[in-house]
Amino acid sequence: MIYYNVEKNEDGIFLIEEHYNPKFLLKTETVFSQCNGYFGIRASYDSKVINENRGMFVAGLYNKAYENEVMELVNCPDIVEVQLIFNDEKFSIDTSELLEYKRALNVLTGELTIHLVCRLKNGLDVKIYSSRFASYHDRHLFCQNVKITPLNRDGELTIVSGINGQITNSGVSQFKQIGSRVYDKKYMSMMAYLTKDKLSMMNTCVMNPNYEKSPDFVLKRRSIYAKYKLSVKKNQEVSFTKYNYIKNSQEINSLNEEDKKRVLDTCIEKGYDVLLKEHRDVLINMWKYAKIDIKGTSLEEETAICFAQYHLFGMMPYEDMKLSVAAKGLTGEGYKGHVFWDTEIFILPFFLYTFPQKARHLLEFRYHGLAGARAKAIDYGYEGAMFPWEVARDGDEQTPLYAALNIHTGKANKVWSGIKEHHVTADIVYAMWKYYTYTNDERFMLDYGYQVIFEAAIFWYSRASYNEEKKQYEILDIIGPDEYTEHIDNNAYTNYMAYFCVKVAKKLANELKIKNLAVFEEMNRNLQLEIRLKQWNDFLDKIYLPIPNQDNIIPQDDTFLSKKVLDNIDYYKQCDEKQAILLDYSRDEVVDMQVLKQADVVMLLNLFPHLFSNEVIKENVIFYENRTIHDSSLSYCAHVQALANIGETDKAFKFFKKALEIDMNDNPSDSTDGIHSASLGGIWSSVILGFAGVSHGQNYIEISPKLPSNWEAMSFYMNIKGVYVKISISKEKIILECERQLDSAVNIKIYDKEYKLQDTLIHEVYTK
Amino acid sequence: MIYYNVEKNEDGIFLIEEHYNPKFLLKTETVFSQCNGYFGIRASYDSKVINENRGMFVAGLYNKAYENEVMELVNCPDIVEVQLIFNDEKFSIDTSELLEYKRALNVLTGELTIHLVCRLKNGLDVKIYSSRFASYHDRHLFCQNVKITPLNRDGELTIVSGINGQITNSGVSQFKQIGSRVYDKKYMSMMAYLTKDKLSMMNTCVMNPNYEKSPDFVLKRRSIYAKYKLSVKKNQEVSFTKYNYIKNSQEINSLNEEDKKRVLDTCIEKGYDVLLKEHRDVLINMWKYAKIDIKGTSLEEETAICFAQYHLFGMMPYEDMKLSVAAKGLTGEGYKGHVFWDTEIFILPFFLYTFPQKARHLLEFRYHGLAGARAKAIDYGYEGAMFPWEVARDGDEQTPLYAALNIHTGKANKVWSGIKEHHVTADIVYAMWKYYTYTNDERFMLDYGYQVIFEAAIFWYSRASYNEEKKQYEILDIIGPDEYTEHIDNNAYTNYMAYFCVKVAKKLANELKIKNLAVFEEMNRNLQLEIRLKQWNDFLDKIYLPIPNQDNIIPQDDTFLSKKVLDNIDYYKQCDEKQAILLDYSRDEVVDMQVLKQADVVMLLNLFPHLFSNEVIKENVIFYENRTIHDSSLSYCAHVQALANIGETDKAFKFFKKALEIDMNDNPSDSTDGIHSASLGGIWSSVILGFAGVSHGQNYIEISPKLPSNWEAMSFYMNIKGVYVKISISKEKIILECERQLDSAVNIKIYDKEYKLQDTLIHEVYTK
Repeated sequence: MIYYNVEKNEDGIFLIEEHYNPKFLLKTETVFSQCNGYFGIRASYDSKVINENRGMFVAGLYNKAYENEVMELVNCPDIVEVQLIFNDEKFSIDTSELLEYKRALNVLTGELTIHLVCRLKNGLDVKIYSSRFASYHDRHLFCQNVKITPLNRDGELTIVSGINGQITNSGVSQFKQIGSRVYDKKYMSMMAYLTKDKLSMMNTCVMNPNYEKSPDFVLKRRSIYAKYKLSVKKNQEVSFTKYNYIKNSQEINSLNEEDKKRVLDTCIEKGYDVLLKEHRDVLINMWKYAKIDIKGTSLEEETAICFAQYHLFGMMPYEDMKLSVAAKGLTGEGYKGHVFWDTEIFILPFFLYTFPQKARHLLEFRYHGLAGARAKAIDYGYEGAMFPWEVARDGDEQTPLYAALNIHTGKANKVWSGIKEHHVTADIVYAMWKYYTYTNDERFMLDYGYQVIFEAAIFWYSRASYNEEKKQYEILDIIGPDEYTEHIDNNAYTNYMAYFCVKVAKKLANELKIKNLAVFEEMNRNLQLEIRLKQWNDFLDKIYLPIPNQDNIIPQDDTFLSKKVLDNIDYYKQCDEKQAILLDYSRDEVVDMQVLKQADVVMLLNLFPHLFSNEVIKENVIFYENRTIHDSSLSYCAHVQALANIGETDKAFKFFKKALEIDMNDNPSDSTDGIHSASLGGIWSSVILGFAGVSHGQNYIEISPKLPSNWEAMSFYMNIKGVYVKISISKEKIILECERQLDSAVNIKIYDKEYKLQDTLIHEVYTK
Repeated sequence: MIYYNVEKNEDGIFLIEEHYNPKFLLKTETVFSQCNGYFGIRASYDSKVINENRGMFVAGLYNKAYENEVMELVNCPDIVEVQLIFNDEKFSIDTSELLEYKRALNVLTGELTIHLVCRLKNGLDVKIYSSRFASYHDRHLFCQNVKITPLNRDGELTIVSGINGQITNSGVSQFKQIGSRVYDKKYMSMMAYLTKDKLSMMNTCVMNPNYEKSPDFVLKRRSIYAKYKLSVKKNQEVSFTKYNYIKNSQEINSLNEEDKKRVLDTCIEKGYDVLLKEHRDVLINMWKYAKIDIKGTSLEEETAICFAQYHLFGMMPYEDMKLSVAAKGLTGEGYKGHVFWDTEIFILPFFLYTFPQKARHLLEFRYHGLAGARAKAIDYGYEGAMFPWEVARDGDEQTPLYAALNIHTGKANKVWSGIKEHHVTADIVYAMWKYYTYTNDERFMLDYGYQVIFEAAIFWYSRASYNEEKKQYEILDIIGPDEYTEHIDNNAYTNYMAYFCVKVAKKLANELKIKNLAVFEEMNRNLQLEIRLKQWNDFLDKIYLPIPNQDNIIPQDDTFLSKKVLDNIDYYKQCDEKQAILLDYSRDEVVDMQVLKQADVVMLLNLFPHLFSNEVIKENVIFYENRTIHDSSLSYCAHVQALANIGETDKAFKFFKKALEIDMNDNPSDSTDGIHSASLGGIWSSVILGFAGVSHGQNYIEISPKLPSNWEAMSFYMNIKGVYVKISISKEKIILECERQLDSAVNIKIYDKEYKLQDTLIHEVYTK
């Protein structure tokens, strides 16, 4: 099922690559990436191999290299390479005979290890054991240890390592200037300047046994290296440790050079193992509440779920509130590090239920992007806040205007999503509503939420057109989540989401007037809320909301159901290659068929599980799945939830297995440019929102599990109003254990019954 | 002696690498480069290997990527890579077992061939034979053929090749935009935009046996590829040919897309072999007059001399008169493709005596750079034209202000050459005078020469300071050719060269007044020549010209002889590593010792062989050589000439061997970033100006051979007043054979006797 081997022991849960496989090089670089929310480093080898794509990405470090480019997450200087030269032969896995090989990522501790025994061309057998981690204890720290043991003879060893600023984003250099220097013949330092930001890096290396003199330092263009030359003895281990301090200049608490040296000195004092333990302790504390225990699942499934959470941990920009999560996290150049609706709809639920403060953080990001959203609305002739399809650090639209040229016509393909895919502005409101109703965080609403929601609703009113004939508001010429239909009218997902957004805005505005008139008055002055409320009422009365037709099918848009059905769609559903249909049909032809890239109506049904009867939901899920190629990584997990919600757990489980594989399948071309953040969030959602049946409304939390048949039981934590509650689900009963007393009662719905959670710490509910 | 093997047969003279040697990867990429004056391509393998540094450089295509950089020769998109994938295994030399290997450069025809028999990891044995050339027939054309033969089984082969625009100059991207497209499912095209210029590339590939369908085309960021998938049979050869058309937008006669397609269609029609022949015919015609035949020399020496000329051919920008020759030609990023005094003093003599029109071309370049030279003079508070130390395409100063940081102090090292090394302004005048006196090209003088020479002389007058005490002009705070002395006064080389420059200007101005008063008057109006002439007279009367001291030593500058002698200089002379002295001494310490990086007074004696007695010359050459580390590649060849000129042919020959090795020695770090253009010119000069004893004055050509003892005879061509004259030198006699009658008599000096060359085609002079 998944391409990697898995292993579990007292030290953790491991993804393992047992054999060197150049074909999977870029994929495994991504999958085994190490990210601590502050930076992410691809799992390249210490020594160079052919076709590698080294990468380090620092959260929020974006740059626009040229006029015709967009802002992109910068591929930063490489700190991982450790050149080993044995008696003049530069070591590489590619040029050696591999006697032993094992690359392993501990998804619980985030430590990556590479074990090699190699025979060099010069006959030397050598064991090389490398380990590294991106610290969660000090998020500026990356530590790497390489142990080298010659096995069959003595020899001369040269170790060269430093900071290589010659790295680019696929051939585009981002840093306009890079300056390197050495302090005290001990610390290597690099300052790298972007158009606006700068990145500073400092590192120091330690040899064991002690290296008497200081190393030679070599300065090249945009790079600096330390060079250690030493004699090595057969069976005697040499240990090389490198401590790296990484800092983006935009940080508030930045250290000066002396401070950084002290940090590195402390690293040397503590050593790799102590630093690793400090780091691991932070992660273990996070896992305490994040780990999902499932009885009856396979180790592979368990590993894949942990893997998803490992990367969810790694993509969260813990410290910088003005950042969000990129479509590829910090693991690759894909989607240029941009933030999409993925964050609110696919990634946020994990944080909302497990670490609600982090969900708040992701939503604050959108508030900080209001200026860009207002600007986009003006650009397109609308009012209010029209959130961009893709954003980087600030909230400005970053969707490229043109994608790759059509290589046959020579014409550039327009990226229509940036121009016509608008639902993100409702998705954000949906997520804020979910956050607010789950946490009752009024402070968030006052500081950020009301403003965003009202302006979003203002946008939607201006976005709709009034159809005089039908006496209804319509949303025309739009793209829904399914991007294989373009320029359609009244996309069901979009219309319902817009309706929801305006409804929430109306409700909140009316409540605010009562709760906090001063704030309401101020917002009224700025946003003319009283007038808006009238418009919103009209909109809510007259917006066209597609309802199931005579066959119980909710039309995805005005024309979808009249389009041609593609007979051999199964061929494309089974294709290894993504978007294979575009090899046989032009985009325009695909747009004219009942072919979906990804869930669209199904997404709607997930977000509003009580909108239609179970019967309607079921029929629609089946109908649309039959027409869906799942060419988007967002699709399988959406179907898991939908199918679980209607009790089709076996079918759901089939899609769940596919969702688990998205980053770890045996297709070497997938995930080469980064993990699929949303899909990883979707894996968690599949388990908790899908199989565990967790959801919440304004005054209740629902837990209506639909466990797959092979899952005997599962348990996990939810953070409910600040208290961690362990939810244990078995076929017979559900146990809720609060870590401490809740401040006020919480309504819990289990299937059709309601319970109050407050008086006792442990609640047992028998479901059978 | 030289690292490569050599071979000679009826097809040419070959440099051969018999074994794959990753340690020499970058050096051999340089040394085996293929350049046709329009572009140069490093000799990378068809398939990628670790640590390679692919490079293509187009003459005149410079760019300044960032504010703090200088203009540099752009490393252009790669067209050489041909990926071969056999049954899913991507082929690389690094990952295969090499059963046979031979990389060979034919220095006469410029064809590069790589023969491989490899065993892949999947067990397939395959023969891969690749050949390529940069056409001299159509200088926009690069042709490459790869023949693939599976030896032990059938299989599936995928060939991927195209244009890779992700190449950078050591991590600095130069193109602000790159657009790729496919025409007619047949031609791949790339437009790459620099700040000012643009580069267009188009190519087409041909498979043999015929590939039925058109290939798949893959468009990636900044790159485009065609992908051919085919079944291959054991022992059946597949031939893949790629024709590339390369065009810099600055060219006058540029082709449109249809024209380029037609060129490529013609290529397909003719095929690789016919195109190779057309190219070879052009080169053979150049070799007819360039080849030096030496009896008694080794094949290795012959090859090294041909190698020098091969690269001299390749670096000459034949068509664009506003370009000159870079310090590394078109073979690497070293010195950023800048033009130094190297061109006039080391490279020009070959062209002057063999292809005088090309020497004119190189000198015209300086005229076009006058604006930059005037600007530099104004910047520094001088008058006239102060030619920059380093220039790119236009004549503006491009010397970086700062070189690498001092990694210990963290302070940037100033590049003093750009600020204080001024002799280039006299070197250019020297070269123009040499050209004029050799060709009598009055047109050149009227169009370019007078202007440059007068403005240079004006500069030198303004550059000198008048020492009231000593009643003499002095040139203070300067750097001579030897860059291990800085901020010195009255550098002998510079003072004599400045004197020469002003003397020539005065002479020419006075002659012009008589020959062509109108022109003189016009120049007088612009340059105030009458006033200048008075200043020049005063300068010539009173300039301090160092003369031999009581020990017969010409002081290199005012303080050199009083500095400390370095006792263990021989250690550094023998060091493999260049500038090893700077590892033990600071730059300031070196400046304070009698240590020379390169010939300085010796250069002076080469340029003015009759300035002092043979005795003085001899003593000075020995004295200064004892103090010279030869850390500059310009040093050995200068000493060959000096020693040959004083009849020390055995010593000269020892240095000659070292000069031959400069790009081809067994030090893998040398020449990695490009060949040493000046040293290659110096090799030719060593042979012709040194051993053959060729020089000329205003009214004569001197041929006073000093053949090394093992050279029995030699012959070569000189272009004398438009007529090719074959000069055959043996121990007993010199024969001059004119291809046709000379228009007017030419005075020939052979040793101390003068002859007239005109009446008959063949002249025999017995020298013993």
